[in-house]
Amino acid sequence: MDALRVIEIKKSVFADNDNDADALRKELKEKGVFLLNLMSAPGSGKTTTLIQTINRLKASLRIGVMEADIDSDVDARKMREATGVESIQLHTGGMCHLDAEMTRQGLDALDLNATDLVILENVGNLVCPAEFDTGAVRNAMILSVPEGDDKPLKYPLMFSVCDVVLINKTDVMPYFDFSLERCKKYIHERNPKAQVIPICAKTGEGVDVFVQWLKDQVNNWKQK
Amino acid sequence: MDALRVIEIKKSVFADNDNDADALRKELKEKGVFLLNLMSAPGSGKTTTLIQTINRLKASLRIGVMEADIDSDVDARKMREATGVESIQLHTGGMCHLDAEMTRQGLDALDLNATDLVILENVGNLVCPAEFDTGAVRNAMILSVPEGDDKPLKYPLMFSVCDVVLINKTDVMPYFDFSLERCKKYIHERNPKAQVIPICAKTGEGVDVFVQWLKDQVNNWKQK
Repeated sequence: MDALRVIEIKKSVFADNDNDADALRKELKEKGVFLLNLMSAPGSGKTTTLIQTINRLKASLRIGVMEADIDSDVDARKMREATGVESIQLHTGGMCHLDAEMTRQGLDALDLNATDLVILENVGNLVCPAEFDTGAVRNAMILSVPEGDDKPLKYPLMFSVCDVVLINKTDVMPYFDFSLERCKKYIHERNPKAQVIPICAKTGEGVDVFVQWLKDQVNNWKQK
Repeated sequence: MDALRVIEIKKSVFADNDNDADALRKELKEKGVFLLNLMSAPGSGKTTTLIQTINRLKASLRIGVMEADIDSDVDARKMREATGVESIQLHTGGMCHLDAEMTRQGLDALDLNATDLVILENVGNLVCPAEFDTGAVRNAMILSVPEGDDKPLKYPLMFSVCDVVLINKTDVMPYFDFSLERCKKYIHERNPKAQVIPICAKTGEGVDVFVQWLKDQVNNWKQK
């Protein structure tokens, strides 16, 4: 297996990120590439969820993964070993989020002509990534049970910008004071259209529901 | 009980945060006030840990708490109900961290002449708060077991700037693939001087060790 690719992302110089993100989405549409931006707090289970998701999708879609982190290549290495799909590590040089230009630097390292779906695993952070449009077609986030059901009250923007919220680590629900109903209520107060899907990435429970949602999104977008 | 105070923090205009933080530390020293900055990812148990800590300390020290959040007053309310100490909510207006000037805006709302110890519960975020000196005498952080023992590899700066790392939620250790030894090794590779204290804020286990550490810090600093 060839060496793992680690891309050192440079700080974006674009003043108007929203325009840049729209331009990137248009370019991706022309190339037939669907970009999903996955966000969460540190340790919510993004990588494990993606491994489960990609292993269910890779027979029907050609997938590339970009793992953004301040440091280390733990995630890209794990992803490649567990799924075999093309996986690159983006180092943000201390930065707390990716914007459209930084996302583009990652995409340039993938072979987009041979890819249907790119998944960006954003920096683990519930604040800053919510403020920057990466150029993704859809935003997804994970809230894990141990973090608590009150997080939509404290990080409202993140829950507002996401099309789907995965509630992960449902297997440990009995050990935490977490109400799925209360959590859904808080999410829908901020974002009535958000899909909420409970999953357990460790066992794979519920992941099929997310996989179907993602397949539908990719198909609808290609037909537009 | 009087109405809960919510302070809307304004963006800092100080160009040189390090100088400003040093100046704030000096002012606090003159007033005999010790400032602790507590950081962690969202949902690691900062508020619960502080409630346990403050209920053990409030007989010997006069304590004030500043709860920083993007939105909501959940934490300040909970803190005041559970401890009775003066507790104010700082709204950061979407900002992902506090710097020294923003911290000062919060301190201005406390009666520092009647306070020995102020604890700042920073925004739940492992990235940005590590980059800004708040003027605190000591930095503390919480890493909770469900987040995983690899977090020092991914958020090295946060672990480097903290004097003490509390490993919280040890009660759920059997349900997660978390090695305390491996975690300590990763922390000490980045910060050999960091104290690592395992706790369970829910049951109070280990909190006495942190309380003793904090008492020692306050006493040493006052005698300097």
